[in-house]
Amino acid sequence: MQHPTLALIGFGAFGRLTARLLAPHCRILICDPSETACEAARQAGLTPVALPEVAAADIVLLCVPVPQLGQTLSALAPHLRPGQLIADVASVKSAPAALMQNLLPDHVDLLATHPMFGPQSAAGGTRGLQLVLCPLRGTTWRRPAAFLRKTFGLRILLSTPDQHDREAAFTQGLTHLLARAMRDLGPAPKLRTKSFDLLDQAFAMVRDDAAEVFDAVTRDNPHVAPLQARLAALLSPASR
Amino acid sequence: MQHPTLALIGFGAFGRLTARLLAPHCRILICDPSETACEAARQAGLTPVALPEVAAADIVLLCVPVPQLGQTLSALAPHLRPGQLIADVASVKSAPAALMQNLLPDHVDLLATHPMFGPQSAAGGTRGLQLVLCPLRGTTWRRPAAFLRKTFGLRILLSTPDQHDREAAFTQGLTHLLARAMRDLGPAPKLRTKSFDLLDQAFAMVRDDAAEVFDAVTRDNPHVAPLQARLAALLSPASR
Repeated sequence: MQHPTLALIGFGAFGRLTARLLAPHCRILICDPSETACEAARQAGLTPVALPEVAAADIVLLCVPVPQLGQTLSALAPHLRPGQLIADVASVKSAPAALMQNLLPDHVDLLATHPMFGPQSAAGGTRGLQLVLCPLRGTTWRRPAAFLRKTFGLRILLSTPDQHDREAAFTQGLTHLLARAMRDLGPAPKLRTKSFDLLDQAFAMVRDDAAEVFDAVTRDNPHVAPLQARLAALLSPASR
Repeated sequence: MQHPTLALIGFGAFGRLTARLLAPHCRILICDPSETACEAARQAGLTPVALPEVAAADIVLLCVPVPQLGQTLSALAPHLRPGQLIADVASVKSAPAALMQNLLPDHVDLLATHPMFGPQSAAGGTRGLQLVLCPLRGTTWRRPAAFLRKTFGLRILLSTPDQHDREAAFTQGLTHLLARAMRDLGPAPKLRTKSFDLLDQAFAMVRDDAAEVFDAVTRDNPHVAPLQARLAALLSPASR
């Protein structure tokens, strides 16, 4: 498997980043119902294919928004062949992992993943960025994981979907909630400390993320709401 | 005034930073009731003096905690001579400015300042760091302000005490409140995004600040409480 075939289901922001990074190392197929996305794929020198052609891939990577994952998996299931590795990249892991386990045939291997980066944070290189892997079925994930670690310097963190969601509620859920709350407070003043500058840089990285990303890392992660309630209570003037 | 005499009243963390930065440019007198502080001054090659000797200074810089400012000013007042420039460095400006105006004689010039940095943020150099100046009386502040801009690359922001406090409530008050609330939520998980790393760096810069600094930038700034209440409301799960 020197040059495996990778099928990217969904050619949005993260699918494009993946294609750009992996093009030198894989044969890449793009599968996206949007004609705009297919045209973008062609302009990037990639091959848009219909869903049945995904059977030719060694690895199928689902890069679709969480709300579309269920129907995408149902449509994909009949075209999968034994031994393929199917992985997702959703920002939460419990629900997508359950969907993959419930909707995909037993003869494929399953891996839930969460790359803790996107086009913006990977713009300066991938070295040291985290990739969370939650192996769900089979062991074919090991070789691509080792490849990603060696070639891109990614830090591989093994986890379970629930453990991932607990931790991501803190780092990612709260960061998005704080970024939005601070934005809604109004424009930040000119007066700055170095710590506020860092805070502002952090929030700038996420505050303009798509609504579906915000929803995925906040509403769709069941561990966020209780943490958010605790943070709001700690911040309320009455608690001082 | 090529080598003016600067009296530093209070030789704590900020007084020491000031002395280190200005020693090549000023004759520096240290006035601090603590024998430990006087010993630290001597070890730094500086001269501890009694309060009456402050009369020899061109500029008197008050680097005492906000709660001690009133009594320090009362003790200082009888020793001031016409034409001296008296300045403070407190993290809030309305109350300290009023204290200086009420407790110091009419024959001295007054300047309220807030250096938007401390030993930690100035460790990598002072260039680009902000210095807020609120001129209260007289114009003798202009020459040292120009000197600090040219020599240390500080960005001088002119403001009024109230305007300063409004803006600092946002940048500094909220940063300290968020840092403390996030710390109280418990240890951050290993799972990290780049944005969370920046957030964590920002909070690390302030979360271990002395309690008196925290109190000064939160409790003692009247504009913080309403902003804090709005932020808590925006973060409460009910607001989503």
